[in-house]
Amino acid sequence: MKKVIVIGASGKIGQAALTGLGHHDVVTASRSGNGCDYQVDISDEASIRSLFKEVGSFDAVVNTVGVCEYADFVDMTEQQWMTTVMSKMMGQINLVRIGQEYINDGGSFSLISGILSSKPIAMAIADATTSGAIDTFVKCVAYEMPRGIRINAINPTVIDEAWDVYGEMMAGFQSVPGALVGKAFERSVDGFITGEVIVVDA
Amino acid sequence: MKKVIVIGASGKIGQAALTGLGHHDVVTASRSGNGCDYQVDISDEASIRSLFKEVGSFDAVVNTVGVCEYADFVDMTEQQWMTTVMSKMMGQINLVRIGQEYINDGGSFSLISGILSSKPIAMAIADATTSGAIDTFVKCVAYEMPRGIRINAINPTVIDEAWDVYGEMMAGFQSVPGALVGKAFERSVDGFITGEVIVVDA
Repeated sequence: MKKVIVIGASGKIGQAALTGLGHHDVVTASRSGNGCDYQVDISDEASIRSLFKEVGSFDAVVNTVGVCEYADFVDMTEQQWMTTVMSKMMGQINLVRIGQEYINDGGSFSLISGILSSKPIAMAIADATTSGAIDTFVKCVAYEMPRGIRINAINPTVIDEAWDVYGEMMAGFQSVPGALVGKAFERSVDGFITGEVIVVDA
Repeated sequence: MKKVIVIGASGKIGQAALTGLGHHDVVTASRSGNGCDYQVDISDEASIRSLFKEVGSFDAVVNTVGVCEYADFVDMTEQQWMTTVMSKMMGQINLVRIGQEYINDGGSFSLISGILSSKPIAMAIADATTSGAIDTFVKCVAYEMPRGIRINAINPTVIDEAWDVYGEMMAGFQSVPGALVGKAFERSVDGFITGEVIVVDA
């Protein structure tokens, strides 16, 4: 049994991740903190550091969040880009950069990217671009993680549980059960793989 | 003959790009402006906008620059990450975002990424991550460029002309003549391709 921090536990992907991690000692965190054990804003370095200090000893970080702004490229403002970059991209990179100071030997990080980097749709250029950055980051940084620490990214399509929110903008996409995304996080946390992008698609 | 703005024209990759663009009406720009027609800092939105206003009518933007900080991941500071993100990644995205307002119908953008996103080496995680972001950005944003505007990325390995600088950190890499990188930029500017990452490797 591992001590696993699940960030974004109250969201749809967070709930999906939890379905694969029930055999572990899970603690939860989210931006509001409502219904979770801890509060964390991944776009804030100090907030990230506080989380890891408060939790103390832990073996795995599972991140399921990243704030993205959605707009047509020609309408997208610098601020919309930077909100996305500082959360979905740098927020996750900072989770790893700061978290590797605190995580136990042989621990693991599981980040979230997303299918829109390989199946582009309207309005999602910032999501796609930062997902591509995370996929590349994970593949390359795995070689320099210290103390046997592993890192993977889960790159899912939309899940059944979120189809009512995203389905309208994702014509021709096939959603998958959230439990499949849970399996992907479980494989990342419990397996020995590292530097992998686990694609979950129909 | 097209009016082409080459940014970073005094650098090694800029010089390589120029070898493929001699048949065009080329104007040059660089951060210092020394020996170039214009001065531009791609990490500064106002500077980008000034460049396009000053040049007036143009058909292609060829960018060959992106400032990257190099360090081991565990030693890399937030500031080193952000310097890289705001130049190699957001600097190039902003060139396109702002440039698409000014470029002629049917124009093209040619951005620079780099081989380290697929062949990782020590010290280069920020370079690799932002190169991955640019490759993904180009593949996805091509579908939403207005007025027949095209966009591609050139993803080169190290060139012969820069081997004395980078060779020591790139064991087992084979450099290629800069003229091959010039051909890639030429194919992007003169061809009809869009949304492509042109890899130049041995």
